[in-house]
Formats: sequence, C-alpha cells, structure tokens
Amino acid sequence: MLKVPQNQVAGHQAGGGNLGPLVDDSGHFYKPLQGDERGSKEVAFYTSFSLNTKVPDEIRKFFPIFYGTQLVEASDGSGLKSHLVLEDLTLGHVNPSIMDIKIGSRTWSPQASEDYIAKCLKKDRESSSLLLGFRLSGLQFYTNKEAVFRKPTKKSVQSLSAEEIKLVLKNFVSSNTSTELESKPDCAFASVVFGGPNGILSQLFELKSWFEDQTLYHFYSVSVHMMYEKQLASEGRNPRAEIKLIDFAHVDEGRGVIDHNFLGGICSLVKFISEILRATDDCPIKACSKDAQKKHYITDNGIN
Amino acid sequence: MLKVPQNQVAGHQAGGGNLGPLVDDSGHFYKPLQGDERGSKEVAFYTSFSLNTKVPDEIRKFFPIFYGTQLVEASDGSGLKSHLVLEDLTLGHVNPSIMDIKIGSRTWSPQASEDYIAKCLKKDRESSSLLLGFRLSGLQFYTNKEAVFRKPTKKSVQSLSAEEIKLVLKNFVSSNTSTELESKPDCAFASVVFGGPNGILSQLFELKSWFEDQTLYHFYSVSVHMMYEKQLASEGRNPRAEIKLIDFAHVDEGRGVIDHNFLGGICSLVKFISEILRATDDCPIKACSKDAQKKHYITDNGIN
Repeated sequence: MLKVPQNQVAGHQAGGGNLGPLVDDSGHFYKPLQGDERGSKEVAFYTSFSLNTKVPDEIRKFFPIFYGTQLVEASDGSGLKSHLVLEDLTLGHVNPSIMDIKIGSRTWSPQASEDYIAKCLKKDRESSSLLLGFRLSGLQFYTNKEAVFRKPTKKSVQSLSAEEIKLVLKNFVSSNTSTELESKPDCAFASVVFGGPNGILSQLFELKSWFEDQTLYHFYSVSVHMMYEKQLASEGRNPRAEIKLIDFAHVDEGRGVIDHNFLGGICSLVKFISEILRATDDCPIKACSKDAQKKHYITDNGIN
Repeated sequence: MLKVPQNQVAGHQAGGGNLGPLVDDSGHFYKPLQGDERGSKEVAFYTSFSLNTKVPDEIRKFFPIFYGTQLVEASDGSGLKSHLVLEDLTLGHVNPSIMDIKIGSRTWSPQASEDYIAKCLKKDRESSSLLLGFRLSGLQFYTNKEAVFRKPTKKSVQSLSAEEIKLVLKNFVSSNTSTELESKPDCAFASVVFGGPNGILSQLFELKSWFEDQTLYHFYSVSVHMMYEKQLASEGRNPRAEIKLIDFAHVDEGRGVIDHNFLGGICSLVKFISEILRATDDCPIKACSKDAQKKHYITDNGIN
C-alpha cells in the first residue's frame, strides 16, 4: 500500500536499500524519523506549530498538514520504524514542475554543536547560501515534448551563481525547457506562475510579511518548495502554482526576535523572481520569443 | 583649529596618544585612514558611492557627505597623516542623544581572509549580532538634570539580550533616564523620536525599501547612527531625530544580489522599535507614567 514517492527532488530518498519517505493513496507522506536529534526536533516542531494559536490561518497553508507519527514498515525493509505522517504535497499533481530552495545564508542554529556548526558553515560558504541567501537543493522540470523530467544531482545545483540561478528560475517557467537548461528560456509562464494575485511572488510576499513580524520560530535549513503544473499552464488553465515550507529538523524558538536570517533569504529570492517578472512585463520581446509571448497572452485570457 | 570630537560613541578615539578622528569648526570630520586595507577600502567606497548615479537622492541623505582625503596633523601628534574628510554629523547639535548600532548578523565579507573571518565570527557569536541581527556599539544619553551623559564602555553594550536592547531603546527616548538606565523608562519621547513621518522608524523604512531592491553594495560591519536632541523634545520642539550610516571599511560590490544580511538586521531593529512605539500608542498607561504621558501629549501639540 505504501510506495516510494515519484516527485521528491531533495532530501533522503528511498530505494536501493536506503531509508526514505513513502506515500499512500490517501494523501499521506511518511517521513522516517532520523535517529539522531533531528527526528525528535522535527516532531517537536510540528507538534508545537500545530497547537500554536498565534500562527495566523493564512500562514498555516504554507506548511504541510501534520497527522502525527506512526510505526510503518520502513522503505529499506528493515522492519517497523517511526515515521512523521504529513500531507503529501504532490497529491493530485500529475507532472509537477518543482524547485526546492533552502532559505537563509546561515543554515545552523547558534545552539548547535561546534562540529555541526563547522560542517554547515563550510557548506554555506561552498554553496550559494552565503552569497545569495539561499541555495537550490533540488528540482524537476516537466517538459511537454516527451514528459521527460530534468533532475540534476544535488551537488550540481547547490553552488550556482546569481546568473545561473536566474537562468534556472527562468527555465522553471518556460515552455521551451527540454532535458537540458535552455540558454534562451522563453518565460512563457512567468506571468501566470510567478505573477498574479495567486502566483508564487504573491505567496512569497505573504510569507515575507509574516516573517517581518513573527518571533515564534527561527527556521534553519528550511526549504521553500515551489510547484506548478506546466501542462495546465500550457492549456491556459490554472497552473496550481504554490509554495510550501518543508524540513523542520532545525527550528529554534524565536525568543522575542524575528528570524532575520530566513527573512533576508526570502527577500533575496523575491528580488530574483521580481526581476524575471518585471523583464517579462516590461520588455516582452527582449525577454520572451514571439511565440512564447503569444502563448503568454492566450494563457492570460484562458479559462481557469 | 582641529579638535577631538565630543560626541563620538564608537570606533577608534583620539586622546592619550591614540590616533583618532578630529573635527573643525566648518562641519568637517577628519577620520584617519587605517594603515591596512581598511583605509583604502573606505576611500574606495566613498569615492564609488559619491559618483554612483544609481543611488537615489533620497537615499544619499543617509550617508555622510564625502569631501575627499586630506593630509592633516594626526591627533596623536605623529605628524601629517592622510584622513578621510567627511561631514561632521553632530555639527550644530548641542547635547545629542546617540546610539550606534552595527547592523547584520554577519560582520564579515565572504572575500575576507580566513583569519579575519574567524575573528569576526567569534565576535558575532559572542555579541548579540548572531541572535538579534545587530549589536550596539556605543551610546550616549543626554539627561536633562545635570546634562550628564551616560556612555558605557563598548564591551558592556555589545552582548545585550533582546530584553536588554529593548530597555536601552526605551531609555533612549525617555525623559527619566539619568546617569543609569532606568528600569521603568517613561518613553515620553517615543512618539516624536521613533514615530511620525520624520521619525527614526520612518527613516528606517526608507532604508529598508532601498535594501530590498539595491544590488550595488553589500555593507559589512556598517553601523546605523541614531541621534536626536532630548532638550528640544522636552521643550516640544522638533527633536531633529535622524539616522545615518557610518563606517564603510568592509563594503563589497553587490554583483546582482541584494544585501540580505544587512536587510535582515534592519528588519530586526525595525521590529524592536515598532514594538516600543506600538506599546506607547496602544497602552499609554502601561507603557508610560502619567506624568510622562502628559509631557508626551504636550510634545505632540508643541510648536516645532
């Protein structure tokens, strides 16, 4: 009944004897509890968060629903193991295009051990985290030709430069991305995926506002999971663009201070996406091919 | 003609054979160039910034005017030395109350040497920088009784907790602060110094907006210098509340990325000041004594 999820782009993955997450047909995602402190910290966060009445309802939608913990047969066949039971974010999605982005120039809590801090700091400096305020941790792009997904290995996407990140984000919302990154992405779906009142930028602004104010939690090494259905976008239908926050094994209490580290990273991501959107709106010919631009207008007037 | 400034609360100070800044009577502040890379980096920044047409005029007011460099007799009597010639920020101020706050949870550039990074990281972790996103680097409070200033040593103010920082900020805008921090500050001047269209919070919001967008510079170890005249505030006149950015020995080019580190720190400071202001407006009796509250209303209706 439980199976390996098809649309996981980052994190520990099941298969080949590795312990990884599982999904069922009812929309549950089973994430094995990591044996060390991380497992218990993630349970503690979900428990605290789900009970916390200070979290506004409109912010809750950015977090996976938490159903508790459960003993299920582990993906590596090693017997019953404790799993977090969460909402399966890709339920009902057919061919989602996904980007996972780990937010924050610093991925370590001040309360972590010296060894862990040294390890994270090294990675933050080697990856794009320190410079950009975030790093890409995984992606898959649906391509309409042969339904092929592009899924670079984790290592290759973590250290991208500002220009490279911009190119990946443009490809994410382009109709001409194939099995390789397109050097001239048409940004055909930028306005319907990134833009508009229900687009990703608008959702990021909601999150940003909350982070300018909230002093409940500090989120280290937490990722923004961005997802939409390219097939729907190309048919002029609602592409179901949405963001969720995932991976909460390193969350601290806020103790009266905002999470300036996470907020800074979100603002940096917002700036990248805003620039792509601005280029699409202001300079359509420059930013997009004529064909793509036509599709873009069709999409704008399409039936959702 | 040149003399030691009376209102410097942080940084290298002249006197007792130490090399420090000097001022003249015409509103110039002479800052000795540090012999190592820092001196040349600060000249390079001021030169670049003063010529940069991409900096909006309304943002320029937050930076000291740059008049070039000049050889003048050093404060320690060691002969002619090269100095940055800047605007004297305290010109015309009689008894300014001042807070210098070093912004950013990280005070080091990714391009700095390993030794320097290690030194800064240690200090960021030991001080409040890592937790709060900023640290206090100096202050002086004018007290109307005997014109006494309070000037804690640098070390004692750098490692304050969130609660302690809040208390210091409240004292900054209170009429009952004497030679010691008042444990029940009346926040009598919060609304005229922090609030209003020309108040410090409004100025911080202007800066914040620019930092959400600008990718020209990354400001490491730069301080916000907040200043106002308590005597004027207590007379119901315009207290001349203003902020400036100071100390640019560690500025990098932005290279297409916003300064998420500085922005995060500014947002954290904004949150602290907003909370004080909100408490003053919403809960006057709770936040301020009755007498202070009376003064507060008088001030609000006073002649500026």
